[in-house]
Formats: sequence, structure tokens, C-alpha cells
Amino acid sequence: MYSLNIEFFGYLAAILTTVAFLPQLIKTLKTKKAEDVSLVTLIIFISGVGFWIIYGYKISSAPILIANIITFILNLFILVSKVYYSKNVW
Amino acid sequence: MYSLNIEFFGYLAAILTTVAFLPQLIKTLKTKKAEDVSLVTLIIFISGVGFWIIYGYKISSAPILIANIITFILNLFILVSKVYYSKNVW
Repeated sequence: MYSLNIEFFGYLAAILTTVAFLPQLIKTLKTKKAEDVSLVTLIIFISGVGFWIIYGYKISSAPILIANIITFILNLFILVSKVYYSKNVW
Repeated sequence: MYSLNIEFFGYLAAILTTVAFLPQLIKTLKTKKAEDVSLVTLIIFISGVGFWIIYGYKISSAPILIANIITFILNLFILVSKVYYSKNVW
């Protein structure tokens, strides 16, 4: 019961820090700009998430693996959208 | 040696996904705006990081605890800056 309680916080944390990037992607696609979103932040964050995927694979942790693959894809889409819309400025 | 190798990826991942938010904070403070940064993303992400802190505390994991406390503080500053500058628009 107590152990279930601990796992609950871990899963809730993983779900929230993963789905969190969906509103950013939707906002970027809607407004067709992400000028204020830091490109450096996106690049470092995506790299870091890539290493979380490697780590999750190496320790055979499905939650780490799944959460980070989704986070990776969402942030890659945000990055691509940002670059795409910034090129469309001129 | 192999175990050190695995830990290396975990620490590298934790460092990158933590320091990643520093360029966003610097950009927001420099440009004095974060209009394109999703408020919903920030709120969900900060909540999720809060649960990572609780989880890290409960499983007594110093790396999870430390990385998420820093991520929490950085994103809280980004959120406060965004709200502060958006109020200054009018």
C-alpha cells in the first residue's frame, strides 16, 4: 500500500511532465510563431531527453522509456514548428 | 565499470534537462516577453516537477531531488517573468 503510494507520485510526475508540452505545441501551431521560445533550451532539453531514453533502455525502465520518448517527440515537433515559422517571417 | 556507464547517462540526462531552462529564463529576462511560451505548459510542467520532488524525497534519491528542485525554481522564475511582463503590456 505504501509502495503503491510512492509509485503513484512517480507516475503522476511522469505523466504531467510529459503531457505538459502538448499545450506548447498546440499554441505554436495555432499562433504560427514561437519567437519567445528559446532555441537553446529546446536543443539542450531534447538532447537531455535523448539521454533519458538511453538510460531508461539500459536500466530496462518502461515508464522512463515511454515518458521520455513521448517528451522527445513533442519537443522535436515544437522545435521543428519554431524553426519552420521563423523561416516564414521574411 | 558497466554500472558506472549506465549512471553516466542518467547524470548527463539529469544535468541537461535541468540546465536547459536557464537559456529560456535569460531570453525572457532579456527580451522582457514570453508571449509565445505556453502558460498551460508551464503550470502543468511545474506541477509535474513538484511531484518528481515528492517522489525523489520518498525514494531517497538525491539526484532526482536536486535536479527537480533546480528545474522547479528555474521554471517558476520563467512563469513569474512571463506573467510579470505580460501585465506590463498595457
